[in-house]
Amino acid sequence: MSVVVQNIERADAEVIAGLAEYGVATVHEAQGRKGLLAAYMRPIYSGARVAGSAVTISAPPADNWMLHVAIEQLSQGDILVLAPTSPSDAGYFGDLLATSAMARGCRGLIIDAGVRDVADLTKMGFPVWSHHVFAQGTVKETLGSVNVPVVCAGALVNPGDVIVADDDGVCVVRREEAVDVLKAAEARAANEDAKRKRLAAGELGLDIYDMRGKLEAKGLKYV
Amino acid sequence: MSVVVQNIERADAEVIAGLAEYGVATVHEAQGRKGLLAAYMRPIYSGARVAGSAVTISAPPADNWMLHVAIEQLSQGDILVLAPTSPSDAGYFGDLLATSAMARGCRGLIIDAGVRDVADLTKMGFPVWSHHVFAQGTVKETLGSVNVPVVCAGALVNPGDVIVADDDGVCVVRREEAVDVLKAAEARAANEDAKRKRLAAGELGLDIYDMRGKLEAKGLKYV
Amino acid sequence: MSVVVQNIERADAEVIAGLAEYGVATVHEAQGRKGLLAAYMRPIYSGARVAGSAVTISAPPADNWMLHVAIEQLSQGDILVLAPTSPSDAGYFGDLLATSAMARGCRGLIIDAGVRDVADLTKMGFPVWSHHVFAQGTVKETLGSVNVPVVCAGALVNPGDVIVADDDGVCVVRREEAVDVLKAAEARAANEDAKRKRLAAGELGLDIYDMRGKLEAKGLKYV
Amino acid sequence: MSVVVQNIERADAEVIAGLAEYGVATVHEAQGRKGLLAAYMRPIYSGARVAGSAVTISAPPADNWMLHVAIEQLSQGDILVLAPTSPSDAGYFGDLLATSAMARGCRGLIIDAGVRDVADLTKMGFPVWSHHVFAQGTVKETLGSVNVPVVCAGALVNPGDVIVADDDGVCVVRREEAVDVLKAAEARAANEDAKRKRLAAGELGLDIYDMRGKLEAKGLKYV
Amino acid sequence: MSVVVQNIERADAEVIAGLAEYGVATVHEAQGRKGLLAAYMRPIYSGARVAGSAVTISAPPADNWMLHVAIEQLSQGDILVLAPTSPSDAGYFGDLLATSAMARGCRGLIIDAGVRDVADLTKMGFPVWSHHVFAQGTVKETLGSVNVPVVCAGALVNPGDVIVADDDGVCVVRREEAVDVLKAAEARAANEDAKRKRLAAGELGLDIYDMRGKLEAKGLKYV
Amino acid sequence: MSVVVQNIERADAEVIAGLAEYGVATVHEAQGRKGLLAAYMRPIYSGARVAGSAVTISAPPADNWMLHVAIEQLSQGDILVLAPTSPSDAGYFGDLLATSAMARGCRGLIIDAGVRDVADLTKMGFPVWSHHVFAQGTVKETLGSVNVPVVCAGALVNPGDVIVADDDGVCVVRREEAVDVLKAAEARAANEDAKRKRLAAGELGLDIYDMRGKLEAKGLKYV
Repeated sequence: MSVVVQNIERADAEVIAGLAEYGVATVHEAQGRKGLLAAYMRPIYSGARVAGSAVTISAPPADNWMLHVAIEQLSQGDILVLAPTSPSDAGYFGDLLATSAMARGCRGLIIDAGVRDVADLTKMGFPVWSHHVFAQGTVKETLGSVNVPVVCAGALVNPGDVIVADDDGVCVVRREEAVDVLKAAEARAANEDAKRKRLAAGELGLDIYDMRGKLEAKGLKYV
Repeated sequence: MSVVVQNIERADAEVIAGLAEYGVATVHEAQGRKGLLAAYMRPIYSGARVAGSAVTISAPPADNWMLHVAIEQLSQGDILVLAPTSPSDAGYFGDLLATSAMARGCRGLIIDAGVRDVADLTKMGFPVWSHHVFAQGTVKETLGSVNVPVVCAGALVNPGDVIVADDDGVCVVRREEAVDVLKAAEARAANEDAKRKRLAAGELGLDIYDMRGKLEAKGLKYV
Repeated sequence: MSVVVQNIERADAEVIAGLAEYGVATVHEAQGRKGLLAAYMRPIYSGARVAGSAVTISAPPADNWMLHVAIEQLSQGDILVLAPTSPSDAGYFGDLLATSAMARGCRGLIIDAGVRDVADLTKMGFPVWSHHVFAQGTVKETLGSVNVPVVCAGALVNPGDVIVADDDGVCVVRREEAVDVLKAAEARAANEDAKRKRLAAGELGLDIYDMRGKLEAKGLKYV
Repeated sequence: MSVVVQNIERADAEVIAGLAEYGVATVHEAQGRKGLLAAYMRPIYSGARVAGSAVTISAPPADNWMLHVAIEQLSQGDILVLAPTSPSDAGYFGDLLATSAMARGCRGLIIDAGVRDVADLTKMGFPVWSHHVFAQGTVKETLGSVNVPVVCAGALVNPGDVIVADDDGVCVVRREEAVDVLKAAEARAANEDAKRKRLAAGELGLDIYDMRGKLEAKGLKYV
Repeated sequence: MSVVVQNIERADAEVIAGLAEYGVATVHEAQGRKGLLAAYMRPIYSGARVAGSAVTISAPPADNWMLHVAIEQLSQGDILVLAPTSPSDAGYFGDLLATSAMARGCRGLIIDAGVRDVADLTKMGFPVWSHHVFAQGTVKETLGSVNVPVVCAGALVNPGDVIVADDDGVCVVRREEAVDVLKAAEARAANEDAKRKRLAAGELGLDIYDMRGKLEAKGLKYV
Repeated sequence: MSVVVQNIERADAEVIAGLAEYGVATVHEAQGRKGLLAAYMRPIYSGARVAGSAVTISAPPADNWMLHVAIEQLSQGDILVLAPTSPSDAGYFGDLLATSAMARGCRGLIIDAGVRDVADLTKMGFPVWSHHVFAQGTVKETLGSVNVPVVCAGALVNPGDVIVADDDGVCVVRREEAVDVLKAAEARAANEDAKRKRLAAGELGLDIYDMRGKLEAKGLKYV
């Protein structure tokens, strides 16, 4: 039952780079308001914005053995995604594992559990989005799996899906939808740029989006 | 049942400025330890301290239509206060709405729900105190109300009440009590300045506040 | 039932300084993965790393009287540890008490409740690890105790135990075990330095820690 | 600042009895989906359904002194509503206070904090809706107020408002709106009875409420 | 993007009945400790144990329109599974919808949100496992989907998967694995019956499972 | 580091029986309002009231191996107390372990984690107070300790301490203080009986406890 899938498909590197540029809020909207991990997933430091291919880990609670296994499966530009099989706030990941992951080209970690050594990780510039920051150590006793579909913080993540993460949280884009989502994000962003200028000039959304009639039809009263 | 109240009374601008200067902890004490919103309301970045008149919004869960309506009601120096009618972590507000609100003179947002584009909001210097940071998008389907009394994060906020917010949280001051609260805050701060000097010099609170006798009377034993 | 214990034993100052250098994650591992306070204890600002002797406080909910009593018991290098007798998010501690505690040589506060004036405390460089940041004021009506054993955020803390705190959280080391824990931490850190270099060079933990055979024996399949 | 308001207006007894009959879900809908206390307010036993006039209490955390004061203000058919000024899970209320309250005609307690002696209260048939069940004792040291407006579990409750509570939770009805809400509840319930029969016979809500066209217009696709 | 899938495959009725007999704990173990929904999913009354085919619903927060759509898709023996697209504690479902669902042969509801009319549902014998019990009403404004894969309370549920639910929680079994899981559950239960008799007679698990040597090898010391 | 302490001292059986009779709220008050486990510890069924000697277990997250070890250490009248070394909602304990524990004279389980098979445990009359009810299975891979001091749900429990548990929660009484606490509980209960009669007759606590003067002195105003 414990497996390591060694060959996974990944999205095109330029598509991934494009999604990183637009960030989580835009990408999530562009794909129809889906794919967000739960709101409790927060970055250990502000200002990072990354995208990469998911290398997924299903791990037992408070047991980080599978992280060592997963790191061998990393390619340049990947992002580790760890979902525990039972909730845990233990610190599965710290500066040593980050050193190893960075040496393999890893761009970050998404973990629905705990992370530690966050001062060091911040200095190293290795971004992590986690449920907890906690020093609690882990064991290496029980197997899990690498590169299987996982539910992480309420979202299904398949190996090779594109992960986008920034200060607003974490979003997963299906590998096979990545190109279309990128196009939709480009269109959305272009549209937003135009709107932003008008709003900055003092125009109201009520007028730009032509909402007054619809509000009145629904019954809104001004008193 | 869905209304927009267009004319609200506001406190005097100088009074509001004075309350901003003293900050949440002092203002809350000065008005008798009341008016705080729940502890889970946190700023999206550190260091902001603002005060302004509340423009209130009662909004459905995950529906930000009323924000567009409310922005039209803003005057220079106002603060938006949004309470959902049912708990929601959706990101009702992002950089476009902030652009619009800033163009109308808005000083910040208090929202018992989610906010997104926080990296942009931080760059723009638009402070938000929220329950969640989350990219989850919203719809524009259901009406709410603007400038009606709301319970936001456990505190009653009337339109035109003064909102004070800083790194310690958010406090509401009744519009009609704002002058008296400012006076009480001034007195409290002056008193604290004197105490601070004595404490910094090594005097003990036990002596400055004359507590030793009362402690003994209550039965405290030194062993 | 309310007592102040005036003379407590403390660990050696050099041992305490050594523990501070290694930080929470290493110290907690070095003593067998025990002693951590709960993951919800977070620093009010990033980057502090301290160690000191615990001066403990058992205090009623939303009543900070005993902090005044405890401050008199502080020696240079101590850390205040407050556990409420019933959960509270009130802000027991702010800039005035911090001024007083710093004047007595205090290095920080660990509080399983709330703290306020965090902008001031940050400017003063007085680190606090707390459950909440909240402006809620407290009263001075009911006695508690100082320098008795307390359970703080799930961990037993005796007066004089060594507290180590940094961005990863808070750890308590028994006073009588502090020397041994320091030695174990030194050994662990030396070992980690060697590993870090190999990992940075691209070697895998799977090989460095010789895990492949054990993984296979447990039944891990590569597909 | 601590006051006891001795004379409050109450709704008509028959109106209150009528609201009790319809229960929380119907009453809450009948008044426009407002007035619910938070979902975490749960009954200590199943099957109770009550309505009564609110006698409100604003009490300090873990201090039940004001309950003794409030009991003197009870009239036949009242319901006690306690909101702590700061969150508390302490057990403010147990079998002795229930004995006293029942002797004064009290129909139940709504408390955004803890209750204890729940086995006894269940035997006595005294219903309580609370945030916590917990034995933690309280003190009698600090004043609060009786019969002032309070925010309890997120809802504003004025003294004399009608409280309706059952297994679905707790709802507050403004005293001055009680007659109208009762009428709306009657109409709603009559309408629901007719619908229930049709649904039980196998008719679909899609047809009864004529939803198919609207769903299609919004874009729903059957595949 | 909003679709209703009208034809789904279901597991064999006898297999479903067999899984119901064994219950959640046994079934979850039999399939390798996977498939549990989060621990916060609790039954509205004790003692129900059901299994059925999942008719899934992806619904907006606080909007129960899609439940009406889903009920038309029910076959005898199905269980409704609702996952909101954003967290909500609203009461999506009450006695009218239950009447309608029961008329179509529905065996229960699994909902990662709120349910109301629980006193009525209990009398009707319609079991619900939910995140919240809450009277909060919903709207019918925004589309969702029926019979698409959903992540409900942390578990992926495909339409037609088998849901097993009892006082221990809720478990999902993949439709295509249901036969094998049933066999494994039978084997497990037979084995447990034998163990239960020996344990009841006072034999120790240490001996029955032959654990003493392994414990000693791991280093357990008896003192 | 993993030990099983085989001989522990226990309180006198009659003292334990006496404490059971008074229950959690009274015992907790009688020992000075201390010793309660956190409010989230709830019974799996209503109506149980037990007391017994603690056999303590420190166990890894989601690993129930030590329960098998602990059961061998049980004597007639003991209560198992399990504290995980890291938070876990896994179901460490079910009907097989309960069968074994009951065969050894065990009166119940206190577990700051999950329990399963609760329908069976209820039928068997084996009471459990837990943080979670959840079917999640556990492994048997990592050692813990038996009969060492543990912090369980925020309270320090030594092996042999007396555990009292009922519908109000769980309280620990130090073994060496049990006789004195029982006496204090008897005195308290006798006093309460007298008070209960007077309160039932309509006398007010304000008068029985002579509170009116003190309230006035503190500044309470009747309006």
